[in-house]
Amino acid sequence: MNGAGVGASASAGAGAGARRGRRPGAPDTRAAILGAARELFASSGYGGTSIRAVAAAAGVDAALVHHYFGTKDDLFLAALQLPIDPRAALVPVAEGGLGGAGERLLRVFLGVWDDEQNQQSLLALVRGLAEPSGQRLLRDGVLQMVFAPVGRALGIDEPDRRMALVASQMVGVVILRYLLRAEPLASMAPDDLVAVYGPTLQRYLAEPLP
Amino acid sequence: MNGAGVGASASAGAGAGARRGRRPGAPDTRAAILGAARELFASSGYGGTSIRAVAAAAGVDAALVHHYFGTKDDLFLAALQLPIDPRAALVPVAEGGLGGAGERLLRVFLGVWDDEQNQQSLLALVRGLAEPSGQRLLRDGVLQMVFAPVGRALGIDEPDRRMALVASQMVGVVILRYLLRAEPLASMAPDDLVAVYGPTLQRYLAEPLP
Repeated sequence: MNGAGVGASASAGAGAGARRGRRPGAPDTRAAILGAARELFASSGYGGTSIRAVAAAAGVDAALVHHYFGTKDDLFLAALQLPIDPRAALVPVAEGGLGGAGERLLRVFLGVWDDEQNQQSLLALVRGLAEPSGQRLLRDGVLQMVFAPVGRALGIDEPDRRMALVASQMVGVVILRYLLRAEPLASMAPDDLVAVYGPTLQRYLAEPLP
Repeated sequence: MNGAGVGASASAGAGAGARRGRRPGAPDTRAAILGAARELFASSGYGGTSIRAVAAAAGVDAALVHHYFGTKDDLFLAALQLPIDPRAALVPVAEGGLGGAGERLLRVFLGVWDDEQNQQSLLALVRGLAEPSGQRLLRDGVLQMVFAPVGRALGIDEPDRRMALVASQMVGVVILRYLLRAEPLASMAPDDLVAVYGPTLQRYLAEPLP
């Protein structure tokens, strides 16, 4: 319905085997950095992992990590293998201000998850819930990369508590609708979900809490 | 507190090796029935599993399954290896009527989950989320055994949809507070959680929904 056409414009005219922007360089080095990053983020969490430590574990210079992956947040997102960049996807949530932010957040979220391809790769991450390393990746990935930036962008008070409440409702929807496919949630139309969950999220985001 | 004193009365005066009321019978048969039940509930779901099929898979008569385990619901609860019987624990939720039911449900739920021993055995079930068989057990276990009876007892309209909404919020709390131990949710006092989530659950249970 309101797909943003991500990635459609940039690839126009690129034939098979043609040069596409920056050359891939040494794929082994890139893979080694990514593997080291994934391992460290999983064992030490987002806060306990530095670019320097990832570089050391991969046997390369920190500058090379930045060169391939950008910032620590970029590297973390690459390690999570998310199908989309949540920072970009969530921009419209904060742009509209606090009024209606709950509903906009929900629409972005459902738009991403209702896409079959996104859903498969996100569910692979969710299944990591069974293991401590996957739990740490998920906790930091969901809270630091998805919800914390929304709270900061909205400028709400008590952002940690409010965004944890929001996350608790949305994680529950993920588990029941997408992972367990529990009815009637699995078959509800996005508009119906927005009507039901929008007020909950809006209260968590914006209304006075006890 | 309200332990029924199971097996206590029959064994009075019985020394080691003496007959203690009903003989334990064949523990292998009991284990075989439970194993067959667990397998069938996991592969065919609650609705697709009959006592008769469990008996056939275990190579025993259906009457023996009833003898050891009672009703199909009792057998399903035994297969789930829940640390408590949710049907008994949830009685106070419906007894108070619809007013305040959200808050009472939350208090029972937090009381069960905040107990360290319950929590460990419930988390073992939650980690089953990673596998299709565990997903089916969880979906049917949570919805059929925990939430559906509450909806029926409260006599609410649209019980399936309302209880799925309630479940979606409570499952999210389980994941963030108990499994991922995400702050500040992991450290919030039960009263604070009730103040925050009570109105959400009450709306899902009792207020007009779109």
